[in-house]
Amino acid sequence: MADITQLRELAQQLRVDSIRCSTVAGSGHPTSSMSAADLLAVLLGDHLRYDFADPKNPNNDHLIFSKGHASPLLYSVFKAAGAITDEELLTFRKFGSRLQGHPTPALPWVDVTTGSLGQGLPIGVGIALSGKYLEKLPFRVWVLLGDSESAEGSIWEAMDHASHYQLDNIIGILDMNRLGQRGETDLGWNSAVYAARIRAFGWRAIEIDGHDLAQIDQAFAEAVKPNGQPTCIVAKTLKGRGVSFLENQPGWHGKALSPEQADQAIAELGGRRNLVVKPHQPPTATAAPMPANHPLELPSYGKDTTIATRQAYGDALRALGAARGDVVAVDGEVSNSTFADEFAKAFPDRFFEMFIAEQQMVAAAVGLSVRHKVAFGSTFAAFMSRAYDFIRMAAISHVNVRLCGSHAGVSIGEDGPSQMALEDLAMMRAVADSTVLYPSEGNQTAKLVAAMADRSGIVYMRTTREKTAVLYPPDEDFPIGGSKVVRQSSSDKATVVAAGITLHESLKAYELLKADGTNVRVIDAYSVKPFDGSTLRTAVKETGGNIIVVEDHWADGGLGDATLEALSGPEKIDARVVKLAVRSVPGSGKPAELLHAAGIDADCIAKAVRELL
Amino acid sequence: MADITQLRELAQQLRVDSIRCSTVAGSGHPTSSMSAADLLAVLLGDHLRYDFADPKNPNNDHLIFSKGHASPLLYSVFKAAGAITDEELLTFRKFGSRLQGHPTPALPWVDVTTGSLGQGLPIGVGIALSGKYLEKLPFRVWVLLGDSESAEGSIWEAMDHASHYQLDNIIGILDMNRLGQRGETDLGWNSAVYAARIRAFGWRAIEIDGHDLAQIDQAFAEAVKPNGQPTCIVAKTLKGRGVSFLENQPGWHGKALSPEQADQAIAELGGRRNLVVKPHQPPTATAAPMPANHPLELPSYGKDTTIATRQAYGDALRALGAARGDVVAVDGEVSNSTFADEFAKAFPDRFFEMFIAEQQMVAAAVGLSVRHKVAFGSTFAAFMSRAYDFIRMAAISHVNVRLCGSHAGVSIGEDGPSQMALEDLAMMRAVADSTVLYPSEGNQTAKLVAAMADRSGIVYMRTTREKTAVLYPPDEDFPIGGSKVVRQSSSDKATVVAAGITLHESLKAYELLKADGTNVRVIDAYSVKPFDGSTLRTAVKETGGNIIVVEDHWADGGLGDATLEALSGPEKIDARVVKLAVRSVPGSGKPAELLHAAGIDADCIAKAVRELL
Repeated sequence: MADITQLRELAQQLRVDSIRCSTVAGSGHPTSSMSAADLLAVLLGDHLRYDFADPKNPNNDHLIFSKGHASPLLYSVFKAAGAITDEELLTFRKFGSRLQGHPTPALPWVDVTTGSLGQGLPIGVGIALSGKYLEKLPFRVWVLLGDSESAEGSIWEAMDHASHYQLDNIIGILDMNRLGQRGETDLGWNSAVYAARIRAFGWRAIEIDGHDLAQIDQAFAEAVKPNGQPTCIVAKTLKGRGVSFLENQPGWHGKALSPEQADQAIAELGGRRNLVVKPHQPPTATAAPMPANHPLELPSYGKDTTIATRQAYGDALRALGAARGDVVAVDGEVSNSTFADEFAKAFPDRFFEMFIAEQQMVAAAVGLSVRHKVAFGSTFAAFMSRAYDFIRMAAISHVNVRLCGSHAGVSIGEDGPSQMALEDLAMMRAVADSTVLYPSEGNQTAKLVAAMADRSGIVYMRTTREKTAVLYPPDEDFPIGGSKVVRQSSSDKATVVAAGITLHESLKAYELLKADGTNVRVIDAYSVKPFDGSTLRTAVKETGGNIIVVEDHWADGGLGDATLEALSGPEKIDARVVKLAVRSVPGSGKPAELLHAAGIDADCIAKAVRELL
Repeated sequence: MADITQLRELAQQLRVDSIRCSTVAGSGHPTSSMSAADLLAVLLGDHLRYDFADPKNPNNDHLIFSKGHASPLLYSVFKAAGAITDEELLTFRKFGSRLQGHPTPALPWVDVTTGSLGQGLPIGVGIALSGKYLEKLPFRVWVLLGDSESAEGSIWEAMDHASHYQLDNIIGILDMNRLGQRGETDLGWNSAVYAARIRAFGWRAIEIDGHDLAQIDQAFAEAVKPNGQPTCIVAKTLKGRGVSFLENQPGWHGKALSPEQADQAIAELGGRRNLVVKPHQPPTATAAPMPANHPLELPSYGKDTTIATRQAYGDALRALGAARGDVVAVDGEVSNSTFADEFAKAFPDRFFEMFIAEQQMVAAAVGLSVRHKVAFGSTFAAFMSRAYDFIRMAAISHVNVRLCGSHAGVSIGEDGPSQMALEDLAMMRAVADSTVLYPSEGNQTAKLVAAMADRSGIVYMRTTREKTAVLYPPDEDFPIGGSKVVRQSSSDKATVVAAGITLHESLKAYELLKADGTNVRVIDAYSVKPFDGSTLRTAVKETGGNIIVVEDHWADGGLGDATLEALSGPEKIDARVVKLAVRSVPGSGKPAELLHAAGIDADCIAKAVRELL
């Protein structure tokens, strides 16, 4: 153990700096930082293995503040480690500063944005999975948890999966300071209950006094001994520890001290210090070699055949896995429906079953992405909504995650509305810097899956349950941001914009209308975001400004809105845009019955065109 | 106990009928139904207190299939109870049938739609809260759980809250049949681990053989004894129980039997039966009286004052609570930020703290709504994304739930992007039959909160952290679906559409432009969905077709898309629509700095208008 007097000084410095930076900012969470200062002092001084000068070192431990609001403490740790200056520390929460209100990867020592509680541990599980099973590196994942956030179900999804995968490289540090935002937490200081829950979920729990440096040190030493089990340290602490008027007092959550209060507090804590601690250097282990790369041989589907896009997704994912050793996949216990099981069977070492825990599924993909894996996650598109907060936060973290939602829309048929994604396009469009793809057939799906691997940010693909006809040759290109004009003539009277299942209905409508002597243009808008506005605007001009958009989705936020959005801007819109979409809650039935009832099948499209003209 | 031979016959009938209806449908989950048939036979025959002829009887027990895919079993129970005919049973999954693929309230004995796993138990918690604390009625809430769905964190949120609130009126029945969709569950038949987890979360756990009718009967008898603790029965079962080629066999999840297979299975089960069981009648208890109603006295705010809309929400909610005894509220441990704490302090008996568990928060509101309470739920708007699947499902259930998300947009300032809702309008627009409100000031907020109480479906209000100026007199009306033209003249050159915080920026921009000699119309689009297309279209005609929409939200799916959507339809759009919205991930900073950086403050609006003209 490091010199205990020095660790005590370090802990006081972390408290003082947490107060100083939040007081200068005029906001922030000093008291939630102070409760965990002793824990972090011992961790930094004695257990963390991290080269702050080389944040990309693959052997660095990971330090995740799942309780992201304790950012003053994290930044004070970075200062104590010599990673940032005192001057930068005092830019906390200022416009343009890397030291944002909650941690973000604007700082190279931060893996992911936290601040939406209950996300750090599940993401840590993804990082630990890579360390233990893929890279086989000895880094540890340290996750500081708040007691309040243990109310989030996602914490227990993480607990469940960490023990299932025997992740003895992840260590939770539960800062049990008893006080939540507006009063006492559900369990207060009931350490025994926390420990019982943690143990029941397959972890080792170590209960300690979180202000006893020797106890902390011993707990960390115990925690890093590999024993096939994750460890969580339940540390009883005092919020605002060390300052008479803050310690264990209600009403101080998320409040900065005034300059006068700060002066008094800092005096009580023994004044400013400028200790710099050099943590242990990481080991120099070499990662297990990745499977060798090979030329990509995407699946191809012949003309006059049918294949479900969800199956083409699985085929292409398997092909991608064969070509690239860095491709990994997770799924939410429905891999035989999403067809991710093709990858799982071919590359069992690179597939992780997340059972029915969609939040953990997305979080694992995020964690794997932090370790530079090309992670794909899949479940029913409807159940992506379960993980929306995780997807939102992943986008803010600027990590690269590819998600595939199958069984979209009313066209799934008999299973009924609970299984029908009708909001996924809206939800995924409204994610920072996202890409939203909706292929209609097999060859297009395969090409787009390959493109997903090279795309940054959150990339979402929507697939269809039903088999659909192959429309394109296998060598056709489908750039992200593009579209395909699949039917056109010089006498087109209107344009039908469609994607996925409704493209096939539109092609049928084209034939119905052609039989009437009406030619329509049909656009396959497979790239919902970014959307190909150029092709659309040409169509507006060439087809009398008559646009029909048809989608197997609610009328709000999906393909129709994307089409309208593409027409927005300083140029005048000279078009009539009729949106055909699902407008009332569907029931069960055959896919064709439900498409018709929703007003989005070929007959309804043809009728809408006739009415418009 | 009822005659055991008869219960055994009943169980076999439930199995046979589960097979029959799914075979006729050609899809469904017979084997997941068969594992729980003995449990349901004993429940129906001996413990459930339910008048199927009077589903609105307030003393009826509740029966929730959290594992909604076991719908064949549920419908077979309804047939055995005489609630539906055998003929209707065989309409399972057909177009137009009430017997959908997963249970929905199209059937009067079904409280809520299930089928997205992990939702039945948290909703049951809400129902049980009403029974124990509000109505003080002796009904019990029986929830059939799948073992796979215990991987969902929301199950543990429910476990946590049920024990916190000592809900001894809720009984979980965990059908531990070992087999998930694509293989064995995480815990298989490890009953001891399930029981340990359940006990650690404060429940009584009773481990039984789920096919031993006497053990089941005894467990139910034990479970209904009030002891201040919820009870979960962990029942070891066999998937496909009773049929040689199905029992405990992989590969049968979600598969209907062929007619030939069904004949063999039914023969093994002893053939068809047509038992009708009359369950125990519910007691005739009287609900505790609700607090008396009084005339509504909404808060009002004077001209030249400022108030945050989040605070006006709290003020109005408290006023509503004083006026209406049926109004109740839940919050996710941030009630001092959302201002729901005003209600909590005034009416502590009608407020339930859901701690930091947004899924449970929304589910509790749903459950309270099932018991005809006017339920309001609140948290930071960003964290509504955590509960999106619950909101989606609540809409499909056609329950009435009012949600308020505070701290929307970049205008929250220093806390940074993890706390900024920038997707909530998109997310909430894409909910079936939803209402989306975004008030800009205090008096408007108060009126809209009152309107929320009378509105059906999912009603969402977005509030702002910052104080904003009062713009309207207290007696102004704000109908849902309306808008306000707050600035106009006969020489308007453009129209600015705004809501919430950006309305105030637009009013400043109006002054800047007026100083230049440019008049613009300003529309307060407080009702984002339904949207007032009529006022907009008039503005398009009268202001040269120049429209600027400005929102503190991503560019996708929010106010801008709602504006464009309002212009869609068979009428030609003759407008230029420029969307000002947040387009890159913000950091921390002062609200004004962030509004400017996002291009949505007064200067940016004025600049956009000038560029457009």
